Amino acid sequence: MSFADHIRACNNFDRARVVPLIAGGRRIGWLRRDNAVALARFDTVFAVEPERVALVASGDVDRVSAAVDEVVEALVAERNIPKWRNETFDVMARWGDKPLFRLDRGAVPFFGVRAYGVHLNGYRFVDGRLHLWIGRRAPDKRVAPDKLDNIVAGGMGNGHGIPEFLVKDAVPVGAVTYCMETELGIRDDVLFVYDIKLPDAFEPKNSDGEIVRFDLMPAEAVVDRVRKTDDFKFNVNLVILDFALRHGLISVEDPEYLDVASGLHRPLD
Amino acid sequence: MSFADHIRACNNFDRARVVPLIAGGRRIGWLRRDNAVALARFDTVFAVEPERVALVASGDVDRVSAAVDEVVEALVAERNIPKWRNETFDVMARWGDKPLFRLDRGAVPFFGVRAYGVHLNGYRFVDGRLHLWIGRRAPDKRVAPDKLDNIVAGGMGNGHGIPEFLVKDAVPVGAVTYCMETELGIRDDVLFVYDIKLPDAFEPKNSDGEIVRFDLMPAEAVVDRVRKTDDFKFNVNLVILDFALRHGLISVEDPEYLDVASGLHRPLD
Repeated sequence: MSFADHIRACNNFDRARVVPLIAGGRRIGWLRRDNAVALARFDTVFAVEPERVALVASGDVDRVSAAVDEVVEALVAERNIPKWRNETFDVMARWGDKPLFRLDRGAVPFFGVRAYGVHLNGYRFVDGRLHLWIGRRAPDKRVAPDKLDNIVAGGMGNGHGIPEFLVKDAVPVGAVTYCMETELGIRDDVLFVYDIKLPDAFEPKNSDGEIVRFDLMPAEAVVDRVRKTDDFKFNVNLVILDFALRHGLISVEDPEYLDVASGLHRPLD
Repeated sequence: MSFADHIRACNNFDRARVVPLIAGGRRIGWLRRDNAVALARFDTVFAVEPERVALVASGDVDRVSAAVDEVVEALVAERNIPKWRNETFDVMARWGDKPLFRLDRGAVPFFGVRAYGVHLNGYRFVDGRLHLWIGRRAPDKRVAPDKLDNIVAGGMGNGHGIPEFLVKDAVPVGAVTYCMETELGIRDDVLFVYDIKLPDAFEPKNSDGEIVRFDLMPAEAVVDRVRKTDDFKFNVNLVILDFALRHGLISVEDPEYLDVASGLHRPLD
């Protein structure tokens, strides 16, 4: 295990294994070839060609979303998509564009549409040493159960912008981007990263059952644990490496310094 | 002019216009096709094939450097390389590897070997507002005369590591990476970025004639000037955008937020 291993794991995307999903002449997703084949029979919604799939359902956002939902229903029934998550993500070619349709979160990797999330690094100093608040994910989470996490992290569903308290108190410090093939398809993820310096008296509380406990850890120990273990959720490793780099916690003498400095921000295509 | 324009200008590299320069089975540079052709007659040093050029000079670092220098001498004479800079850069496939040879700085873009530099953001707060010290480059600089610059910036020549005072007082906060075609060839650049919080009483002094003046500017005004003008040296725009992002000076509502967050760290190949 090394810093670069975590970066590679999140960037195992292989262009040769996918075809683009096109809408209105622009790419909106990446379909693994087996997933593209599974769409062929829904020809009023998708036109499947050997090297591309086009969204052909027409109408406003509600109509296109309904047409795609019927396809998702069939894909869930035949286990090509594990299950409905009952939370929708907006689909568009580029952040800030008008959404073309809403897609259930469970279907996002199948279609390989870009997903946006928010991660918050909560830190404070103890006796002059930088510490990070770290959460442990619940054992019943579908993705990465029991893994270590940031204090706040999650996908930005349809209609949800940046949460209000982040706008008020936290500092936006960039985004981590990566593209990853998983069992389900492609994760083309953009994680908006925020830092917040927390008051000494503050202690994060588990409010929704998704994080079972929080611990305040010396930042150096966190970075060491990222380097040597798989204890953190796959993408949280990258968010913490970005934090570590920005806060001077990784030495330029570290043989992986440039792997980290050039590996956390895959250019968006 | 926009943030994304500066990023695009530094990333105009087009793989189709170059061939790899190979040594010991690994890529060490990118040769523009016209530059590759100009090497064909030096066949004891370089083997030029249609889709690659191989370094074939053998021996230790001194011998290979001397063989390449003879080629550079001829290329300078025929104006394929503008002039000797009398400062050498180490050439290797990857940062931290043993150098294969030393190359005069003037020849670096011709061969498109990766070059490493250091940029230092010097900042302080004035009445609670973040300010940056900004230098103006001398009018007789060969590259980017009269342009605005960081307080310390420069290439890391052969045998020079990170300058000692940076190791002591400044915080390493990552690297900006880009790949750019210029008139001379390819700039495959890695800029190690440092931040330093300067004491109120500190005023940078021009010591070597390369920077003619320094001004303390409100960081927001600097970012605005980056967005709207070409006043800064081409790559300093990227270093300042990286600083601005890390310090929360660019709003997530900015339509170019993700262009900046994903555009300053070209993955190293």
